[in-house]
Amino acid sequence: MNKGQEFWELVKKSTGFGPNWDNINHITKIDPEKGLSSSDLEYLEGTDAVMVGGSDGVTAENTAEVLELLDDTDIPVILEPYSGEHVVGGNGKTNNFSASDYTAVASVWNGNEENFKGKHEQFFGSELPAVKQELYNEIESMVGDGLTGRAAKNIAGRGLDNKLLREAYIVQNPESAVAELTEATEPVDSETVGQIAGAVENFFDNFDILYIEYSGMYGDPEDVEAAAEMLEDTTLLYGGGISSEDQALEMLDSGADTVVVGDSFHEDPEEYRDTQV
Amino acid sequence: MNKGQEFWELVKKSTGFGPNWDNINHITKIDPEKGLSSSDLEYLEGTDAVMVGGSDGVTAENTAEVLELLDDTDIPVILEPYSGEHVVGGNGKTNNFSASDYTAVASVWNGNEENFKGKHEQFFGSELPAVKQELYNEIESMVGDGLTGRAAKNIAGRGLDNKLLREAYIVQNPESAVAELTEATEPVDSETVGQIAGAVENFFDNFDILYIEYSGMYGDPEDVEAAAEMLEDTTLLYGGGISSEDQALEMLDSGADTVVVGDSFHEDPEEYRDTQV
Repeated sequence: MNKGQEFWELVKKSTGFGPNWDNINHITKIDPEKGLSSSDLEYLEGTDAVMVGGSDGVTAENTAEVLELLDDTDIPVILEPYSGEHVVGGNGKTNNFSASDYTAVASVWNGNEENFKGKHEQFFGSELPAVKQELYNEIESMVGDGLTGRAAKNIAGRGLDNKLLREAYIVQNPESAVAELTEATEPVDSETVGQIAGAVENFFDNFDILYIEYSGMYGDPEDVEAAAEMLEDTTLLYGGGISSEDQALEMLDSGADTVVVGDSFHEDPEEYRDTQV
Repeated sequence: MNKGQEFWELVKKSTGFGPNWDNINHITKIDPEKGLSSSDLEYLEGTDAVMVGGSDGVTAENTAEVLELLDDTDIPVILEPYSGEHVVGGNGKTNNFSASDYTAVASVWNGNEENFKGKHEQFFGSELPAVKQELYNEIESMVGDGLTGRAAKNIAGRGLDNKLLREAYIVQNPESAVAELTEATEPVDSETVGQIAGAVENFFDNFDILYIEYSGMYGDPEDVEAAAEMLEDTTLLYGGGISSEDQALEMLDSGADTVVVGDSFHEDPEEYRDTQV
């Protein structure tokens, strides 16, 4: 690679241009604790994107292992860290932020303060600026006098921003691990789901994604309908208990832009294949 | 006025194009409960914008009275409602949303859930869509066949969006009325102010404003410095206890884009004039 190509590769690895949601109807969620083997990769052929994340037993290392295997595929990879250390840590060669196409940062709307905004103070106020600084330095040292420090900062800053996806979660299964961890022990009714969608679309409108999460349990299509009615710019994800094509189609017909399938992939790959709509 | 002019007036009254913060260093905050008389207007000549809002004893009616008096001036007027009913209600002739140049919606970062996001479910999920619908209808009936319903929706939608300012508040005086109402009883140290600023700039980056509010008490310039260091796109407001030019300048020198003066205006207009930097 010449210097120009090398630079472009660096920019690409560190930045993103936003996923093309029109082409993403089906996402597979891979839990780093449950892991991934190279023989699993063939099953992923029919999915449109992969999310890597979980709430229990996730570490920077098991996350890095999954990302490394996925690096051999062309599937867009969305890292969904549970905490900042899953992003900045990694396998020693690179950090998990750079090893993913996008990094989705979750805020749980109906959980506790810490999980809606509290933990973001630490990540966006300290950790991310450090990642950014590292990236500045790398870009600057590479391009040298040809690029001023200011330009390097702009490239790094804009790149980071394009690569980050912001997610508002509504956690609807109070028995799930994520509900326990985030204290999202009160599911909300469909009308409230619609109101939350209105607030996300019109007030917290930097959120790329509203995610209705039934985690392990097939949910209420009326929630999806109520949210879809309020959303224009925000992408609507539904996840939870999908194990058949019919269920996937029902949620898409109800207005979800994308369905997310996780357990089925880990537990029954043949069944999982049917969900790939 | 011909139809074209009338239409343009309607669009202007209902929309905004964002304040020009470069020209706004000094804001006067008028508390509707304390009111405004026409003889007060001359004191406002040296201020760059006016905010109308308070947390105690505010009603749609006393808000409408203040807005009506300000309508005779050229000063940009920012309505800062404490709740949705101060926006959609009004003096019967118009609503307060239309009667202001901008409507700033406050979220208290270090208060309770309700005041960071909870109340926005109601406002953005139910009340605002109703205002929007009213505006659609007005625009559609005016323009008739010349404009499709979709175009009317777009104008109204974009207009509303431009007119709304989103504010993240850090409430630093635990003895103040706003702290009591929002349960912001724990002021944060300057380092945390900086981290919150990082989260607002990089995660909740649709916020137009970060507002450090010492409400009635002159605050710590280090808070302002810590926040300013993290902010690029977000406008930094400081408010609280400013009663002299020196204090106003100190906060501007520390990195505030704009200082907000309230009590001094209501209590000692001559002293207040000195704060107009």
